[in-house]
Amino acid sequence: MARNKHPEETVHLILDVAFRLFMEKGYEQTSIQDIINHLGGLSKGAIYHHFKSKEDILVAVTDKITHESNQMLATIRDRTDLNGKEKLKTIFKESISRPVQNDIFTVAPDFHKNPKLLFSLLHETIEEAAPNYIFPIIKQGISDGSIQTDYPEQLAELILLTANVWMNPMIFDSSEEETYYKFMVFSQMLKGFGLDIVDNELLERLRELAVIYQKNKLKSAL
Amino acid sequence: MARNKHPEETVHLILDVAFRLFMEKGYEQTSIQDIINHLGGLSKGAIYHHFKSKEDILVAVTDKITHESNQMLATIRDRTDLNGKEKLKTIFKESISRPVQNDIFTVAPDFHKNPKLLFSLLHETIEEAAPNYIFPIIKQGISDGSIQTDYPEQLAELILLTANVWMNPMIFDSSEEETYYKFMVFSQMLKGFGLDIVDNELLERLRELAVIYQKNKLKSAL
Repeated sequence: MARNKHPEETVHLILDVAFRLFMEKGYEQTSIQDIINHLGGLSKGAIYHHFKSKEDILVAVTDKITHESNQMLATIRDRTDLNGKEKLKTIFKESISRPVQNDIFTVAPDFHKNPKLLFSLLHETIEEAAPNYIFPIIKQGISDGSIQTDYPEQLAELILLTANVWMNPMIFDSSEEETYYKFMVFSQMLKGFGLDIVDNELLERLRELAVIYQKNKLKSAL
Repeated sequence: MARNKHPEETVHLILDVAFRLFMEKGYEQTSIQDIINHLGGLSKGAIYHHFKSKEDILVAVTDKITHESNQMLATIRDRTDLNGKEKLKTIFKESISRPVQNDIFTVAPDFHKNPKLLFSLLHETIEEAAPNYIFPIIKQGISDGSIQTDYPEQLAELILLTANVWMNPMIFDSSEEETYYKFMVFSQMLKGFGLDIVDNELLERLRELAVIYQKNKLKSAL
């Protein structure tokens, strides 16, 4: 392959191929060489020009997913037809309904071996997503009377930390049953803040995701 | 120094010296050589016989603190004079009143540079402390009517994750004010589960700890 004149296209191609391989084979089982083999003649040098390591590629793949997720959050935050509580409900529904979630659940990087990734997820949740997307929605909810709290910033953090970290089966290995129980506790927690946003549709979707994840784990254990 | 016939005493000595230095100078500013210099003639070889790296020593130091904390949890769990809710209240009071907490707050390892340590804290919280100490207390609370939940295992995890991770100023850099607000949200969360356990004494202590931590941070920034 001739030298690519558009480096952003090369990066895009590498991330697409890597994401597909991480999904098909699992992150641990994918080597840099596997990625190169699927890049139609791109050299090892070209890939190392953009990424220092396989972990670096994983970080870029997850950044891309985070970016897409943040765009979804921004769109809902900026809607004018919903009150604060309805926006939060819409976010939870969207988050666990996006098709990409199935993909993420099948990639399922092993955080034991990727503690840096865990740290960046925690950081992104608390320092970026909570203040930029959830906090303004809670502030709106306080104004329109649909959410009750004196501490909107901290409630935003608590909700996202619980949802993105504790209930994340990639971080804490939970059975289908445990994931469901976590969600019930999460829902009781939200009710304490006047947030009755969990319905049967949400619970059903959550069960489906837990099943997908468990199946993939069995597969990679074989 | 002659070869130590009691390796456990050598380990004990290394951990004591390392802990004191981490406290005085900060973890990042302490080198293996600093530790050796304070060990009264113990060779570099002797220290590397027991620990692979400085991070390894830090893990052992925190394991020791965790072990002491778990003993406190076990003692309260096994008391026969308190109901479930009173036990949880006692645990929170003890946790933030133990003198060693001041020390931990002055050590304050930088989790950005120690993501493995963060992972082990998360793991220890969810896989060890929650099921072994908090879960049995919540189960007791359900029996004696002092705690309301259908999911004692998951509530134990949620409480500890929030207290040990989110409210931990070593992980999430919070101002005194923010730490206080977090605690208020935490307390509102607990109330949603029938757990009205936060009183003024607890809040006062929490403010003190936040001040100690902030002072130390200023010191190491100079």
